[in-house]
Amino acid sequence: MSLIRSWVESANSPTHPFPLNNLPYGVFSTADTKKRCGVAIGDYILDVQALQANGFIVFGSVFNDPSWNAFMEQGRDHWRQLRERLTALLAEGADEQEQLAAFLTPIEDAKLHLPIVVTEFTDFYASKYHAMNVGTMFRGPENALPPNWLHIPIGYNGRASTVVVSGTKIVRPCGQTKALDADMPSFGPCNRLDIELEMGAIVGRPSEMGTSVSVDQADEMIFGYVLLNDWSARDIQAWEYQPLGPFQAKAFATSISPWIVTTDALEQFRATTPERERDLLPYLRESKPMLFDIDLEVGLAPEGMAETVIARTNYNQMYYSAAQQLAHHASSGCAMRVGDLLGSGTISGPGKSERGSLLELSWGGKEPIKLKDGGTRSFIEDGDTLTLRGAAHGDGFQVGFGECVGVIIPVKE
Amino acid sequence: MSLIRSWVESANSPTHPFPLNNLPYGVFSTADTKKRCGVAIGDYILDVQALQANGFIVFGSVFNDPSWNAFMEQGRDHWRQLRERLTALLAEGADEQEQLAAFLTPIEDAKLHLPIVVTEFTDFYASKYHAMNVGTMFRGPENALPPNWLHIPIGYNGRASTVVVSGTKIVRPCGQTKALDADMPSFGPCNRLDIELEMGAIVGRPSEMGTSVSVDQADEMIFGYVLLNDWSARDIQAWEYQPLGPFQAKAFATSISPWIVTTDALEQFRATTPERERDLLPYLRESKPMLFDIDLEVGLAPEGMAETVIARTNYNQMYYSAAQQLAHHASSGCAMRVGDLLGSGTISGPGKSERGSLLELSWGGKEPIKLKDGGTRSFIEDGDTLTLRGAAHGDGFQVGFGECVGVIIPVKE
Repeated sequence: MSLIRSWVESANSPTHPFPLNNLPYGVFSTADTKKRCGVAIGDYILDVQALQANGFIVFGSVFNDPSWNAFMEQGRDHWRQLRERLTALLAEGADEQEQLAAFLTPIEDAKLHLPIVVTEFTDFYASKYHAMNVGTMFRGPENALPPNWLHIPIGYNGRASTVVVSGTKIVRPCGQTKALDADMPSFGPCNRLDIELEMGAIVGRPSEMGTSVSVDQADEMIFGYVLLNDWSARDIQAWEYQPLGPFQAKAFATSISPWIVTTDALEQFRATTPERERDLLPYLRESKPMLFDIDLEVGLAPEGMAETVIARTNYNQMYYSAAQQLAHHASSGCAMRVGDLLGSGTISGPGKSERGSLLELSWGGKEPIKLKDGGTRSFIEDGDTLTLRGAAHGDGFQVGFGECVGVIIPVKE
Repeated sequence: MSLIRSWVESANSPTHPFPLNNLPYGVFSTADTKKRCGVAIGDYILDVQALQANGFIVFGSVFNDPSWNAFMEQGRDHWRQLRERLTALLAEGADEQEQLAAFLTPIEDAKLHLPIVVTEFTDFYASKYHAMNVGTMFRGPENALPPNWLHIPIGYNGRASTVVVSGTKIVRPCGQTKALDADMPSFGPCNRLDIELEMGAIVGRPSEMGTSVSVDQADEMIFGYVLLNDWSARDIQAWEYQPLGPFQAKAFATSISPWIVTTDALEQFRATTPERERDLLPYLRESKPMLFDIDLEVGLAPEGMAETVIARTNYNQMYYSAAQQLAHHASSGCAMRVGDLLGSGTISGPGKSERGSLLELSWGGKEPIKLKDGGTRSFIEDGDTLTLRGAAHGDGFQVGFGECVGVIIPVKE
């Protein structure tokens, strides 16, 4: 597939994240208007609620709420119908061009909000490079991978109340930490604040309690993907996580990018999971490629200074796909709901510069990263801006995710 | 305090769970009527939505939805006002008796539903007897308590989508398990299905992201309590839980009792946490008793056979209170929301018959429990009915929770 040209001229640039091939869904408002659903096209947002109100699309009341949840509920046939209709309406030469121009808002004039109501948030641990890096640091290379790792897409329940949209300021978390030689723990601001570069998969169709879903069904249940930063307090995590896993170390914030790039937009970028080192149990086997070839990078900019790109990797480096994770999630009979968000787990590649967390990049603080304008970083300092970026690269076009940005601010006194 | 007499005669029995002293809140429907909020009094449910519609109470539109969430949002002043008003309306000699009789439905004619929309579910691990029992089984008595246990009310995020009301049938979960001597794990129905006897605390007031709450504030944020059965698949848990905690072993179901017993109804039953073995950090210290003296028991009835009470304990046996757990939960800056449900963790006492799980009662299956009608149990079998019961005992009256019942049915093929 090559670039599909639009009458929105900015969408035809080979380097623009939002060409007609993409059509990512978000929720926006302006100084004068309320939150509502929109779709990005070039430098603009097309108001989907207005399309419905004016009869250009016919999806009932699903766009009355400022979230994509009600539309997702309608299922994949409707998802495809809307995409086909938007593609026709926005294509070069479309008859509706003049009427629709009134429903375009420049992205730069809009405030972007969470595109969905996040029902529940689950985070996984599914990059083998990441698991090996972290395991090697804490347990040595022989015991790096837990015994279950090659059999289970390991996951844990996260906290949905603090999933926020890109741009939301993140307060440095507080918590209990304990120095190795201390008798007692102490309570205070986190000293080893970190990012985790992840993709978030958005569940668009439910499963019933007491039933499971196949990997193929799971792939069909995923509405789309966002960039996800699973902010992590490493010092809090180290002291709290045994025996029941991370809790407050991850509960204070998770940032996602504002645009849902649909599975339909990513179809041509499907990528295979790697050769299995141990056979997967049948319930986890994929019938087709279910990862995606998405280039990812992380930028770090200290307050008032230039950004340094500190990591570049690709979502195709994962050992488990989101579809496998979702099938595992439902395998016990756990009901899945529309709006559930599944974090891929930190995405690291094999190279030193392909690591998706500062913990790995600075090797636990032993090898601080050098920044462009001077200075170094082992972990995040107050005032630092962390930016995730992602895009799938086609022939003469991109399917971009935009940015997932967070600035760290000090603890409120 | 002694029994407060009501014109609903059945409420005046010293052994009835729902005297006027209690006034627990639920959601009910009948064959002919929709789900709506109600309050239990003796053998009846008083229709709270009808009270509002007919001007007996004045709380705006909060009872339009069939859940207590909107009412909880209004805050503690409103909680107390409603309780005072209901107490007056239902007291012996109340002028409104004749008019209100029309709004009573016999409990036996009603279907009970989840009393709240569960926003998120968090489960804790806060009985020292339970932690010692489990730790001793898996790591020996010297290493039974994790090093952080006496400092942190350890918790993990659970799954809200499968919190169900008492009476809901529970499908035996499936999952990965691995025998110690096996090379590969296998997938199939759980063979070590268990209960966890817990109390659930319902968060009625929110906290803002990036801020914390004190233990005193946390105590004020808790609307009330329910009985909670944190169904657990021990064999799945054993294989999956390292390194990120329980996931599918707990995700398939959590049952709660249908009636929220408010913190206000429990005031006179406050109990202290035990002497601290290590000083708590200041953010976890309580200014007054924040546990409650609630007698608890567990019954097990094989299909078609009599029930055996397999455990009796008390909520006052916990090391950490729900208020301490909630303060810890918000300590990182994690936003808490109305409708959040916090499981206390398994409640075990010091004695052998005071253990709140089959894992402990049968000592990992090595000492099967004897049942009244013959037969034994190490873990739950298909067709078994498990019933939790709880009540605080006053002078000539009870504040009861009713029952939290679940029947295990086989995996659907």
